[in-house]
Amino acid sequence: MNKPNKWEINVGELATGQALTIPVYQFTPENPSGPSVYIQANVHGAEVQGNAVIFELMKQLENTHLNSVVTLVPLANPMGINQKSGEFTLGRFDPITGINWNREYYDHNFDIEYWYTKNQSHNDSDLFSAFRQTLLSSCQQRLQNPWGISTGQRLATELQILGHQADIVFDLHTGPKSCKHMYCPEYAIDAAQYFSIPYVLVMPNDFAGAMDEAMFCPWWKLSELAETQGRQLDVAVNAFTLELASQERIDMNDAKIDANGILAYLSHKGVITEKVTPVKMDRYACQLENYKKFYAPTAGMIEYLAPLGEKLSVDQPLLSLLRMDQYGTKDEYQHISLDIECIPILHFASAAVHQGTELYKVMTDVFLLEHYPPLKK
Amino acid sequence: MNKPNKWEINVGELATGQALTIPVYQFTPENPSGPSVYIQANVHGAEVQGNAVIFELMKQLENTHLNSVVTLVPLANPMGINQKSGEFTLGRFDPITGINWNREYYDHNFDIEYWYTKNQSHNDSDLFSAFRQTLLSSCQQRLQNPWGISTGQRLATELQILGHQADIVFDLHTGPKSCKHMYCPEYAIDAAQYFSIPYVLVMPNDFAGAMDEAMFCPWWKLSELAETQGRQLDVAVNAFTLELASQERIDMNDAKIDANGILAYLSHKGVITEKVTPVKMDRYACQLENYKKFYAPTAGMIEYLAPLGEKLSVDQPLLSLLRMDQYGTKDEYQHISLDIECIPILHFASAAVHQGTELYKVMTDVFLLEHYPPLKK
Amino acid sequence: MNKPNKWEINVGELATGQALTIPVYQFTPENPSGPSVYIQANVHGAEVQGNAVIFELMKQLENTHLNSVVTLVPLANPMGINQKSGEFTLGRFDPITGINWNREYYDHNFDIEYWYTKNQSHNDSDLFSAFRQTLLSSCQQRLQNPWGISTGQRLATELQILGHQADIVFDLHTGPKSCKHMYCPEYAIDAAQYFSIPYVLVMPNDFAGAMDEAMFCPWWKLSELAETQGRQLDVAVNAFTLELASQERIDMNDAKIDANGILAYLSHKGVITEKVTPVKMDRYACQLENYKKFYAPTAGMIEYLAPLGEKLSVDQPLLSLLRMDQYGTKDEYQHISLDIECIPILHFASAAVHQGTELYKVMTDVFLLEHYPPLKK
Amino acid sequence: MNKPNKWEINVGELATGQALTIPVYQFTPENPSGPSVYIQANVHGAEVQGNAVIFELMKQLENTHLNSVVTLVPLANPMGINQKSGEFTLGRFDPITGINWNREYYDHNFDIEYWYTKNQSHNDSDLFSAFRQTLLSSCQQRLQNPWGISTGQRLATELQILGHQADIVFDLHTGPKSCKHMYCPEYAIDAAQYFSIPYVLVMPNDFAGAMDEAMFCPWWKLSELAETQGRQLDVAVNAFTLELASQERIDMNDAKIDANGILAYLSHKGVITEKVTPVKMDRYACQLENYKKFYAPTAGMIEYLAPLGEKLSVDQPLLSLLRMDQYGTKDEYQHISLDIECIPILHFASAAVHQGTELYKVMTDVFLLEHYPPLKK
Repeated sequence: MNKPNKWEINVGELATGQALTIPVYQFTPENPSGPSVYIQANVHGAEVQGNAVIFELMKQLENTHLNSVVTLVPLANPMGINQKSGEFTLGRFDPITGINWNREYYDHNFDIEYWYTKNQSHNDSDLFSAFRQTLLSSCQQRLQNPWGISTGQRLATELQILGHQADIVFDLHTGPKSCKHMYCPEYAIDAAQYFSIPYVLVMPNDFAGAMDEAMFCPWWKLSELAETQGRQLDVAVNAFTLELASQERIDMNDAKIDANGILAYLSHKGVITEKVTPVKMDRYACQLENYKKFYAPTAGMIEYLAPLGEKLSVDQPLLSLLRMDQYGTKDEYQHISLDIECIPILHFASAAVHQGTELYKVMTDVFLLEHYPPLKK
Repeated sequence: MNKPNKWEINVGELATGQALTIPVYQFTPENPSGPSVYIQANVHGAEVQGNAVIFELMKQLENTHLNSVVTLVPLANPMGINQKSGEFTLGRFDPITGINWNREYYDHNFDIEYWYTKNQSHNDSDLFSAFRQTLLSSCQQRLQNPWGISTGQRLATELQILGHQADIVFDLHTGPKSCKHMYCPEYAIDAAQYFSIPYVLVMPNDFAGAMDEAMFCPWWKLSELAETQGRQLDVAVNAFTLELASQERIDMNDAKIDANGILAYLSHKGVITEKVTPVKMDRYACQLENYKKFYAPTAGMIEYLAPLGEKLSVDQPLLSLLRMDQYGTKDEYQHISLDIECIPILHFASAAVHQGTELYKVMTDVFLLEHYPPLKK
Repeated sequence: MNKPNKWEINVGELATGQALTIPVYQFTPENPSGPSVYIQANVHGAEVQGNAVIFELMKQLENTHLNSVVTLVPLANPMGINQKSGEFTLGRFDPITGINWNREYYDHNFDIEYWYTKNQSHNDSDLFSAFRQTLLSSCQQRLQNPWGISTGQRLATELQILGHQADIVFDLHTGPKSCKHMYCPEYAIDAAQYFSIPYVLVMPNDFAGAMDEAMFCPWWKLSELAETQGRQLDVAVNAFTLELASQERIDMNDAKIDANGILAYLSHKGVITEKVTPVKMDRYACQLENYKKFYAPTAGMIEYLAPLGEKLSVDQPLLSLLRMDQYGTKDEYQHISLDIECIPILHFASAAVHQGTELYKVMTDVFLLEHYPPLKK
Repeated sequence: MNKPNKWEINVGELATGQALTIPVYQFTPENPSGPSVYIQANVHGAEVQGNAVIFELMKQLENTHLNSVVTLVPLANPMGINQKSGEFTLGRFDPITGINWNREYYDHNFDIEYWYTKNQSHNDSDLFSAFRQTLLSSCQQRLQNPWGISTGQRLATELQILGHQADIVFDLHTGPKSCKHMYCPEYAIDAAQYFSIPYVLVMPNDFAGAMDEAMFCPWWKLSELAETQGRQLDVAVNAFTLELASQERIDMNDAKIDANGILAYLSHKGVITEKVTPVKMDRYACQLENYKKFYAPTAGMIEYLAPLGEKLSVDQPLLSLLRMDQYGTKDEYQHISLDIECIPILHFASAAVHQGTELYKVMTDVFLLEHYPPLKK
């Protein structure tokens, strides 16, 4: 039976002087031969279900034949998790700066072309190893800025240092009220068929600030650059964001299902010797640019009518809007539909909204994952 | 067909100078013969379902034979409703003072005994009328304090002025995550059998600051005082707080059910001529002192296991508590039960809690409403 | 040289499992002969200056001839201190429940009369000791409630246990924007002449929920009860709240001044052998009931004109009120005065206010402390 | 005497249905011959002093010989101004999305090159007029997106529509605790000598999302593009952000000073016929890239020692850091200095800070404005 080691990393200090620490669990087989894995959860404070998935995954990993180093970081944002506002967790953005905790990762801006020129004589494996070392040093340097770095940058950089050491990275999130979905970079689209997740957002390979992008972007750039020089280099790192249904919810049975989905992928990649078959289900995808937001056209009380994760045709209502200040007029109560077919993926958590509140996010131009890439219209 | 009049009351002013207004709808039959009614909703900002109930009730009242003045005030706390914090409504307490918006009503502290001595020669009807006038004047005086009154006091007093004019008062609330229940004063316990609400908290007749108490307490004191002087006076005002399931939720179908429950009571009191039969259901009650809070014994991630509104025996788990910082120890995951049988009524909205967070409120020493009053143990 | 011992008390646990701890420093002379002292600071998160005063006081105590046990608790509310909202500390009330952190102390409700009957045969010293033990046990019991207690109650009770062990208690606070003032119970009014604080609010001896009251009230009740039985008992405990000017401010020089004021009182009580003379200054007082709040009569932008801690006559403006939404009307800009002479003590921290915001607190019917008790009007 | 017209623009709707409106004041001389002016204040909720400056400026404009249309918008962000959290205004970012209210302006992304090709036959004046029309249409289109736009985008776009109609734009802000300073685009550096503001941050001409950039960037791009085609075009719009000292502060006397500074510039531009001489003072500047942030190296209580707006040498302390949890160790209290000479411009508003809090912003590589451009090192 495998038992993980545990230690804590220090990611900051609260005003009273209390250390902000995060538990790190690591499975370390004797002669690791498979790709290393890093999994974190709960970077947004209200998105707790990933902790339960890590729990179930660890319980299972204890009884597998393990070929890789697997590092697991639950409770990855103590300041976000502990930030309550009324009965809810205000853990999406730093309460002081307003910056999204998942947008503080470091966009390595060293000159990759110059770096490649200097290191291209290495074989692939040594090249990867040197590149990884460069990413890690660059993070370390960011931490040691003599004028300091912000609270959110420190947290992100500490997590990034853990992540950069792995070949496979998972960032476990949830939506507000949401069905399961995931973000998958275009180059790694084959991975999406292993998880217990029916909806897939196909991301371009760019950096927009989130953890998954921080993990794979430098590697993808490296591989692109090599290609321009006539060398075929795999993108050495795969990174995914899984959105495990709704926030403020722990469901241990559901956590088992998602732990199994992750295991199916890890089995496929040789992280464990056991064969784990992915669940059979229809999986749907759309390009990220076709993942659309619908904003409240007016203020009001919202009944979210469209079920999440089900196709919504143009004649079905997305939501109803109640205006008690307009009773007796035509605006007192209305149903609102969208002008194109879509699959609603998530909706806002509150039922009383200002004009302009983001109410729904829906997938449009959806195709079966197995049909990827879709024909261009 | 009856059509309500609409006007707005001014309950304050925001920093920018914008008036805080609340819509008031009033049905006014030509020769009102029944008891007057006042219904308000959404004094706590996240508790929106009462608005939907008022909507459905108004739609029904339009088509009844109405004998009473009925005043309806949805959206009764604009500052609370509009106060967002992240994806939720932070509408339970004034964000500046921290005071619960439902604890700012005026506890009339004039000398009732002295008042009664001066007015006891009136017949019942005139006595009631004079007493009501005194309550209203005392509210008006509070509003005109030359040193001002607080934002919350102003709001509460303006609502109180509307409420004091009625014989029957409803304050529509919800719990955080909650099943339907209601607060009913002891003297008016017979009313509880009319609503579509299975759980009843029997309140003592004291003032603790909430709207229902502000409405009936002075009248109950008057009646008690008269009794000491040998005069039998009904408590002239009935007031109830209905808790219409969970906050941050609009459900129009469910609103119809609760509108009907209120109609059944109004029908019984002669407010409408039509006969509306209450829904047949088992209704359970307990004394307010037996409505108990369970606080988080430690911090952790909570799976709320006990279904709301169902009997929970001592061998059934109330909740589970996941501690990812304690993985590998006996504290990593545990089920927690209570030591007495109970009916869980509501639980906290967030799944990640500090030690000492109020997790559940449960009814204990529960009896069938029809068995009221219960035998003392 | 005296060196304090240090330990930490555990007052709760954050959602992530992190312990909430508070540092405790204690000077323990070998054979304490003087009254014991307890000093805490920063129970409201933004009111930090008390920490600096404790720092300076400890530095001085290290070099005195000390006769008493002195316990000092800075940073007394880690959850409040660490709760940021934008650029400010939202540390006045529990962000979840809205309850003021300084209103959660335990109002011992055991039957003092019964207790006295059983213990009256003791001499004064034993009686005090037994009473103190009863207060401490009652706090311990509160902590061990099998259904738990709230986060705020736990914090308050843990502090109360430290406080109940002392004969002299200080709770160090600040106002929002404030000059120095203090709350002094009526029976201990003589103490007020020692501190470096010019304004004194004379409190009745009742419990209203704050730390100082939690400390002295039971003792004052005991002494009152004994008196009804013909026994003269001193109120054994003195407790004071000092308001050390404005929140969100650390001023080390000013901290020295207030540390000296406290030392002057401790010197007078024999806690230290050295003679420390109180600063000569005019000290003014008023009864707590004459400490009045002025609420914003309308919304607007406020220029706080009245200097804090200076007499304001009726023809001097308290503040000006700018209404940019009313430019061109008579309401665009106005000066506001009070109708009685007063001394403004503190004002609100923000310059843009809703109608009903508490803008100023002022002392009225002020007298020189040395003239206490004032003649009744 | 000139009197401004007043109207209100609607920039959104609160959950209760209440319109979010902003007052607009406009002076409209009969035959305007000078450049038009737009001035807004209070886009960040706590930054109120700009309202007072607009008040004083309007009072003065009433008595000038006015040659231009001048539009003034105080209270420009009602949601931000009214968003209180404890005793402060939480008005820097949208409480729902966390996005800075001053980063939602529209970055016009139409193809300027294509536009210029089509319109280059116009003379300068017609070209400007057509370009302005294009900017306005593009804003209108953003507002009419059938899927809606966010609350913050709507507000920003409505303000932008007002701003795009002017030739000179001022956005009035403040720092947290701050001395007066301003942001000035490089191409308009000559303007900086007119205001009553001693510190100038010289901005590159790029778009980073703030109002001033949204105003001048498209015009600067147009002028740059024309230059590549051999045509000399002025940058037709000047836009500035003035930082009028500290937030949460109204000071009517100081407002007069800044109103005069703005008048001096308007006089120079011919907006008013009267000659207003700028105040004589030393004005200092640095490039924006040399405006540096210092983050809290550890947590603690901060005494902000460096006076704002005064040169700080490397041997002078910037701040002191008190650690009451470390009493008795070398970390209990320390002074912190910077390693280069600088002028501290602003500091954080709270005195109790987490590690990584932005404590100070300081100008480095400072030069006298009259020496612009500085020699490159």
